[in-house]
Amino acid sequence: VTSIASQTDTTAARLTPGELVAVTEAGRRLVACAEASVAICAETATANDQDGRFAFESIRALQESGFLAGPVPEAFGGGGVESVHDLMVAVSRLARGDASTAIAANMHLAGIAVIVVLLRRLRAEDDGSSIAVLEHLLEEVVAGRAVLCFPTSEPGTDLASPFTEAEPVDGGYLVSGHKIFGTISPIANLFFPTVRLPRPDGEGYLTATALITRDTPGLTIADDWDALGMRASGSNSIVMEDCFVPERHLFAVRDNYGRSGRWAPGALLANPPLAATYLGVAEVAHELAVESAGRRKGPHGKRMADRIPIQELVGTSEIDLAVCRAMVGRMGMLADDFMARHATSEPPQDEANALMKESQCMKYVVNHKAGEIVDRSMTICGGSAYMNTHPLTRLYRDVRAGPFMQPFSPYEAFEFIGKVALGLDPTIER
Amino acid sequence: VTSIASQTDTTAARLTPGELVAVTEAGRRLVACAEASVAICAETATANDQDGRFAFESIRALQESGFLAGPVPEAFGGGGVESVHDLMVAVSRLARGDASTAIAANMHLAGIAVIVVLLRRLRAEDDGSSIAVLEHLLEEVVAGRAVLCFPTSEPGTDLASPFTEAEPVDGGYLVSGHKIFGTISPIANLFFPTVRLPRPDGEGYLTATALITRDTPGLTIADDWDALGMRASGSNSIVMEDCFVPERHLFAVRDNYGRSGRWAPGALLANPPLAATYLGVAEVAHELAVESAGRRKGPHGKRMADRIPIQELVGTSEIDLAVCRAMVGRMGMLADDFMARHATSEPPQDEANALMKESQCMKYVVNHKAGEIVDRSMTICGGSAYMNTHPLTRLYRDVRAGPFMQPFSPYEAFEFIGKVALGLDPTIER
Amino acid sequence: VTSIASQTDTTAARLTPGELVAVTEAGRRLVACAEASVAICAETATANDQDGRFAFESIRALQESGFLAGPVPEAFGGGGVESVHDLMVAVSRLARGDASTAIAANMHLAGIAVIVVLLRRLRAEDDGSSIAVLEHLLEEVVAGRAVLCFPTSEPGTDLASPFTEAEPVDGGYLVSGHKIFGTISPIANLFFPTVRLPRPDGEGYLTATALITRDTPGLTIADDWDALGMRASGSNSIVMEDCFVPERHLFAVRDNYGRSGRWAPGALLANPPLAATYLGVAEVAHELAVESAGRRKGPHGKRMADRIPIQELVGTSEIDLAVCRAMVGRMGMLADDFMARHATSEPPQDEANALMKESQCMKYVVNHKAGEIVDRSMTICGGSAYMNTHPLTRLYRDVRAGPFMQPFSPYEAFEFIGKVALGLDPTIER
Amino acid sequence: VTSIASQTDTTAARLTPGELVAVTEAGRRLVACAEASVAICAETATANDQDGRFAFESIRALQESGFLAGPVPEAFGGGGVESVHDLMVAVSRLARGDASTAIAANMHLAGIAVIVVLLRRLRAEDDGSSIAVLEHLLEEVVAGRAVLCFPTSEPGTDLASPFTEAEPVDGGYLVSGHKIFGTISPIANLFFPTVRLPRPDGEGYLTATALITRDTPGLTIADDWDALGMRASGSNSIVMEDCFVPERHLFAVRDNYGRSGRWAPGALLANPPLAATYLGVAEVAHELAVESAGRRKGPHGKRMADRIPIQELVGTSEIDLAVCRAMVGRMGMLADDFMARHATSEPPQDEANALMKESQCMKYVVNHKAGEIVDRSMTICGGSAYMNTHPLTRLYRDVRAGPFMQPFSPYEAFEFIGKVALGLDPTIER
Repeated sequence: VTSIASQTDTTAARLTPGELVAVTEAGRRLVACAEASVAICAETATANDQDGRFAFESIRALQESGFLAGPVPEAFGGGGVESVHDLMVAVSRLARGDASTAIAANMHLAGIAVIVVLLRRLRAEDDGSSIAVLEHLLEEVVAGRAVLCFPTSEPGTDLASPFTEAEPVDGGYLVSGHKIFGTISPIANLFFPTVRLPRPDGEGYLTATALITRDTPGLTIADDWDALGMRASGSNSIVMEDCFVPERHLFAVRDNYGRSGRWAPGALLANPPLAATYLGVAEVAHELAVESAGRRKGPHGKRMADRIPIQELVGTSEIDLAVCRAMVGRMGMLADDFMARHATSEPPQDEANALMKESQCMKYVVNHKAGEIVDRSMTICGGSAYMNTHPLTRLYRDVRAGPFMQPFSPYEAFEFIGKVALGLDPTIER
Repeated sequence: VTSIASQTDTTAARLTPGELVAVTEAGRRLVACAEASVAICAETATANDQDGRFAFESIRALQESGFLAGPVPEAFGGGGVESVHDLMVAVSRLARGDASTAIAANMHLAGIAVIVVLLRRLRAEDDGSSIAVLEHLLEEVVAGRAVLCFPTSEPGTDLASPFTEAEPVDGGYLVSGHKIFGTISPIANLFFPTVRLPRPDGEGYLTATALITRDTPGLTIADDWDALGMRASGSNSIVMEDCFVPERHLFAVRDNYGRSGRWAPGALLANPPLAATYLGVAEVAHELAVESAGRRKGPHGKRMADRIPIQELVGTSEIDLAVCRAMVGRMGMLADDFMARHATSEPPQDEANALMKESQCMKYVVNHKAGEIVDRSMTICGGSAYMNTHPLTRLYRDVRAGPFMQPFSPYEAFEFIGKVALGLDPTIER
Repeated sequence: VTSIASQTDTTAARLTPGELVAVTEAGRRLVACAEASVAICAETATANDQDGRFAFESIRALQESGFLAGPVPEAFGGGGVESVHDLMVAVSRLARGDASTAIAANMHLAGIAVIVVLLRRLRAEDDGSSIAVLEHLLEEVVAGRAVLCFPTSEPGTDLASPFTEAEPVDGGYLVSGHKIFGTISPIANLFFPTVRLPRPDGEGYLTATALITRDTPGLTIADDWDALGMRASGSNSIVMEDCFVPERHLFAVRDNYGRSGRWAPGALLANPPLAATYLGVAEVAHELAVESAGRRKGPHGKRMADRIPIQELVGTSEIDLAVCRAMVGRMGMLADDFMARHATSEPPQDEANALMKESQCMKYVVNHKAGEIVDRSMTICGGSAYMNTHPLTRLYRDVRAGPFMQPFSPYEAFEFIGKVALGLDPTIER
Repeated sequence: VTSIASQTDTTAARLTPGELVAVTEAGRRLVACAEASVAICAETATANDQDGRFAFESIRALQESGFLAGPVPEAFGGGGVESVHDLMVAVSRLARGDASTAIAANMHLAGIAVIVVLLRRLRAEDDGSSIAVLEHLLEEVVAGRAVLCFPTSEPGTDLASPFTEAEPVDGGYLVSGHKIFGTISPIANLFFPTVRLPRPDGEGYLTATALITRDTPGLTIADDWDALGMRASGSNSIVMEDCFVPERHLFAVRDNYGRSGRWAPGALLANPPLAATYLGVAEVAHELAVESAGRRKGPHGKRMADRIPIQELVGTSEIDLAVCRAMVGRMGMLADDFMARHATSEPPQDEANALMKESQCMKYVVNHKAGEIVDRSMTICGGSAYMNTHPLTRLYRDVRAGPFMQPFSPYEAFEFIGKVALGLDPTIER
C-alpha cells in the first residue's frame, strides 16, 4: 500500500496473507489501478478532512487512470469489470488511502454497474430510446467526460419512498425536491435522483430514477456538507426546482420501489462495495497499530509489541479483520452468482430478499467490526492517537458513517434479516 | 437435513441460500454421503447423550457408506477427497445430526488426510518401509477394517510436549504414557499417539507419532469419558504400558514438534474440520429456533415469529451464522491453496504460522459464535428449552467443548495470533 | 465461604474487599445464617444434581436454623428482615453453596416477604378474616411447620395471564389448572398458585392468589423436574383438579394482574433476590478459577496465575463481578427505598413500573454477566472443567436458568425497559 | 438539567428515578451548584469545541459560585465536601453540560481534595513549613485567587516514572521537563507537576510534587491542545526550564511513586470523578436519543418512539446507564469508606491496591459503556446525528478520551486487576 509505505516498509508483506484479491482478470486490473491511486488519496486525505474540502485530486486521478470506467463494458472501451466481488475489493483498496474518495468513487462506479445491468435488460426488452441515452452515457464515461451522482436520501423519509416529485409535463417531467447525502456532487455532471410520480390511476405513486445534467436550470448543488467524518466526500444537499427532464431520461419506473423487497439493482449493487469501504478503513487502522507497537517503547525500555496484552489486542483485531474479509469475500461471491443468474431480467422477489439479507449481514458485521478495529487501534497507539495530527482521528470519524448508510439502520437491519429468515414479508413499518 | 425433516418440512429450503457447499466433485460426494447419514446420527444422539454411550451406530453407518474412506485416494479405492474445504463442509453436515459423531468421524478422517500427505512426502523422499505400512493402512480403511484414533492430549502438558515416552529397544520402541481425550477410541483399532523419544545427543527430546494396534499388550482403552457434552464421542483415556512398537511404525520424527510454529500436518489438517463441527451445531440450533418461533403462540394469540423482538433475535443469529459460514468457507479455501502449494514437502515455518493464524481466527470465531447461537436459540424457544427433553440442552453442552480443543485455548489464541501478526516468534511461554 | 474453604484457605480474604454486606442488623443475622449453611448446601449439591434429587437436607437445615423465618416480623418470633437488599445478599450467599437451594429458599422467603406486605396492607384496610389466616401462617413458619411454594408459570401463557381457574362455588372456589416450575414443591406444604376468576360482570377475568394446602384433594405434585440445571430445586409440575379453596384463602384479587405494570408485590419482591442467586454462582465460579490458576502449572513449569493472559481473564471476571455486585447492591437500595415509601398502600403504577425497569436492568446484567463469568472460569480451569466431576459443569448448567425466569425474557426485557423509559404503556403485546 | 431544558421539558423528571444523588449535606450543596452551572457549560460548549478554545466562561462561573472551593474545609470558608462519592456526582453533573469543563474542574477539585488529605497528614506529623504553604493555598482558593493544575503525563513514560527533573540547588530545586495533557492550564495559576529527584544515595530516583506559580521564570504554557475531543479542556503542554522551586514547595517526596501500588492519594482521589465525567456524557447522550425518538416520525407517520426496535435500543442504553450509575455509586461509597479509615496516615499497600482495583473496574466499565451509549444514541437519532451541527458529534469525540486517561490503559487495566485479584505484585512491566 503506497500510502503507508512511507511509514513502514513491511506493509505490503504484512497485508498479503489473508487479504482479498480479485477473482477476475478485469477485476485484477481494477484493483491494481486502485492500489496505484492509494498514494494520491492518502496524500490529500488529511488536508481535505481538516478543511471539509472535496477530494478533487483523487477523483480526477481515478478518472485519468480509467478507474472510473472500470465497470463499463469493454465494447465501449471500458474496463469490463462485471464482478461485484472485484468492485468490493477495489473500493476497499481505495479506502486504505481515503474513505471519502472510496465512497465518492463508489457512488459513480456502482451507478455505472447499475446502468450496465439496466442497459442489458432494456436490450432484452428492445426499448430503443433509453438504450441510446445509456450507451452515449457509457461512452462519455470512457471519454472522461461524465461523473455520475445518484442522490437518493431525503430528510424525513426512507430510500423506498422519495418525496422528490416528477410532475408530468409536455415531453417529460418537471422534477422538484430536496436530496441529501449527495456524495461526489461537487465534481459530478450527471445526477440521477430517485423520484416519485403519480400513478396513472391516481392511487399513490410510482418511483423512478431521473437523469438531470448539471447545467439544468433549477438544479442547485449546495456546498453544505459539514459532517463528523467522510468530510471530503462532497455529500452535499441537492435542490431541484422544476428541473425539466425529457421523457427518455426517466428510467426504471416501478411500482412501490424498494418496499417489500422489490430491490432495484442499485441497492443490490451499490451497497456491498460501500460496506467494503470500511474493510479498507479497518485494514489501514490495524496497520497503523501494528506499526506503532513495533516502534514505541515504554519508560523502562520494553517495546510495545513485546507486551503480551498488546499482542492480544493485535490478535483481536486480526480476528476481526479476518471476519470482515471473510464476509466481504463471501458477499462478493454470492452477489456474482446472483447477478449471473439474473443477468437480463428482474430477479424473483424472494431471491432478491435472500441476497439482501446476506448483504445486510455483511454490512452490519463490517461496519461494526471496522469500528471496533479503529477504536482498538487507537488504544494500541496510545495518547498520541487522540491528537488531531494522528491519522486515526480521521478514521475514527470516517468509520462512524457506516451504520448511517441506507438501507438499513442497525435497528432496521435485524428486523429485516429476521423477517426474511422467518419467511415473512420483510417490509419495515415506518 | 434429514434429522430435522420430521420437525419442519421447510428446512431444506431454508438452509439452502447461504449454506456452504463443496467445491470439488469428490467433496460433493462426501457431503452427500454425510447428509444421507444425518438421520441415523440424529436418531441415536439423544439416547447416547443421556447414557454417555459411544455413537457406535452412526460411526458404523459412516463406515459402511464409505464416508470414512473419503480422503483415501481413488487409487486405493477411496473417495479421493483432497479439499480441506470440503472435509469441513462434510463434518459440519454430520454435526447437524450429532456433534459427537462429527468429532469422532473427524478424528479418523483428518488422520487419514494426514497420512495421505505423509505418504506423498515419503514417496518424494523414497522412504520404503513406512510407505508400505501406510499403503496397507489405507487399503484396510477402504476395506472397512481400520478405524483410526490419534490421541495427543495429556494431563499437565500441551500438544507440543508429549510426556508419553518411546524407549528405544531392539527392533523398535516400548511406549508408555497416559493420553486423554482419545475420541473415537471405543471403535478404533489403530492408535497413533504422539510420543517423545530421547534425542541421539541426549539433549532433550524428539517427538514422533507411533502406531499401536488395539491388540498390543499393554494398551488399555479406559471407559471413563463422562463429560458435560460430546458424551457420545468416546473420548476416553488411553493408557500405554510398555507397548512394543516396531521401528517402521514410528512416523514423523521431528525436532521440537509444534513449538515455534513447526506445525505437523495434523494440526493444520485436523483443526479446521473440528471447528466446522460447531457450524453444524449452530445451524441446527438456529433451525430449531426458527421452527419454534413459527409454531408457538403467546397467551393472546400472537405467533412468536410475528413479534419484532423475536425477529431481531433470529436476525442476530442469521448474522452470526453468516459469519461462521464465511469463516469456515474462507479457511477451507486458504487451506486448500496452502496444501496445493506444499503437497510434497514441509512448508516453510512462517507460512505454516500464517495459516495457523487464520485457522485460529476461524476457530475462535466459530466456537464463540456457535455458542451464542445455541444460547440465543434457547431464549427464542422459551422455558421448554431448559428441559432435558429438548434437543437444545444437548447442543448447549456439546457446543462448550469447542474452546477447550487444542490448539489453542482462547487465552492462548489471541497471544499466538498477535505474535504472528507482529512478526514475532509465536511460541507461547508455558 | 465454608463450601470452598476446603479448597483454598484464602477464600474469605479474597472475597471480602468488594463483596456485598447487609445494611440492617436483622439482615446481617440472616446473611450470617446463610453463610453458616453454605457448607451443607455445597456438600449435597453434586449428588443431588447428578440424581436430579431435591435439596431436602439444605432446606431442612435452613428451616432448623431459622433462616426460613427470616422475613417474618420479630413480633411473631421471626428474623425481622425487612430489607430487600439484605434478602438479596443472603440469597446470593446460599447460591455460593448451591443455586438450587437458593432459588428454592427464595421461593419461600420472598413469598413470606410478600405476605408481610399484604398483611400490613390488610391491617390498614382492617380486613379481618384474611388477617387471621396470614398471621397464623407466619406463626406456623416460625414453628417450622410451613414451607411455602408460589407456582405462577403455566405452559403457553405469561405470568400476567394465568389459565388456572377458580370457579366460584358455595363458600369458596374450585381451583383447576396446571402449573410448571413449581420450585420447592417437594417439601412445601402450602401452595399459592395464581388463578383467574370470572369478573362479576362476565367480561374477562380477575386474577388472584389461592392458598391450597398439600393435603387438599385434587392437588398433585408431580415428580417430573428433569432440567439442564437447577436440578435440586424441585421445580415440578403442579396439577390442581377441583381443589376446594375457602373464600378467605383467596388473596390479592385484582384486575388485570401484572399487565400494564400493575405489578403485584410478588414480582417486585421475589425477582431481585432470585436474580441475586446468579451473583452467588458467579462468585463461586470465579473463586474456582482463581484457585485453579494459583495451583496449576504448565509443561514447562510456569504457574497459570503467572501468565498474563490468565491474569487478564481473571481481571475481566473481576470487572464483571464488580458490575454484578454494583447492580445487586443498587437494586436492593432502590427497592428498600421504594418499599419504605409504599409500606401500607399499593404504589402508583408509574412508580412501580420505574422500579420494575431498574429490576429488569439488574436482572439482565446479572444473568448475562454471571453466565460469562462461569464460561470464562471454565476456560481458565482448562479441559478438566469439561468433565462432570468438576463443579463448574453444574454451575454452567445452573446459570443458564436465569434468562428463562419471568418476568421477563431477554427479548421482552429490552422492550419493557425501553417503553417505560420512553414514557409509554409498557404492556408487551403477546 | 438546565442545558437540555430548552430541548425537552420532561428532562428533569425523566432523569430522576435512578440518577445518582449526593450522600452528604455538603455534597448536596456542591451538586446543586453544579446543576446551576450546567446551562453556562452547555451554552459555550459547541463554540469552544469548534474553535478549540478553553472553557473560560464555565470555569469562571464555577469559581464565582464557590464550586471550585467545594472540597476546601469549612474552617477555611470552603464547601467542606469530604465525600469522594459526592465529588463524583458533582463532576458527572457538570459533564452533562460540557465534558471539557468537567475534566478541567476536576483537575483543580481533585487536587484540592488531595491537598486536604496531605494537610491532614502533615498536621499529624507536625510538619510546620509545608502546612503554612498549603493553608495559605486553601485560603487563596476560597478567595477565588487560585486555580490549580496537576500535570503528570509526559511523552514516553507512565505516571509512575516522571522524567521531569528537580535538580537540588541552594534553598530549593531547579525543575526542568515537559508535561503533556496539562488540563485547565489556560486559567490555572498554580502548577503541581510530578518530578523526580536523585536519591540521596545516588541509586535511582525519588518522586515528588512541586508547586510552581504561573509567573515563575522558565515556565511556559503552550497553546497546543488540538485533539479529537475534550477540545475546551485546555490540556496543553507545559514546559519547565530551570524553574526555581523553594524547598517548602516540594511535597510528597516518596520512593518509587505509584509503582507496585504505592498509590499517591492523587491517583485514588482524582481518577474516580474523572471517570464519572463519562457518566454525565452518557446521560446527556441518552437523553438526546429519547427526546429525538419522541419527536421524529417516519415517512408513513409512525413515531420513532413507537417502533419496537427503537424501544429496545433505548432499553439497552437504560441498562448500560444503570450499570454506569451503579458502578460510580459503588466506587464512591468504597472510596469514602477507605478514606475514612485512612484519614491521617498512608494506607497499607494491599488495601490501596484493592481499592485501585475497584476503581479500575469502574473506570473501564464507565468508559466503555458511555462510549456505547453515545454510539447507540447516534443510531437512534439517525443521519442528522452525523452532522457537525448535532451535539452528539461532540459527545462522540469527547467520550473517546476516557480510555486514554491514566492509570490505566485498557490493556493494562485487565492485567493490573487480575494481578491484584491473584494476590500478585501488580507492577506492570513496561
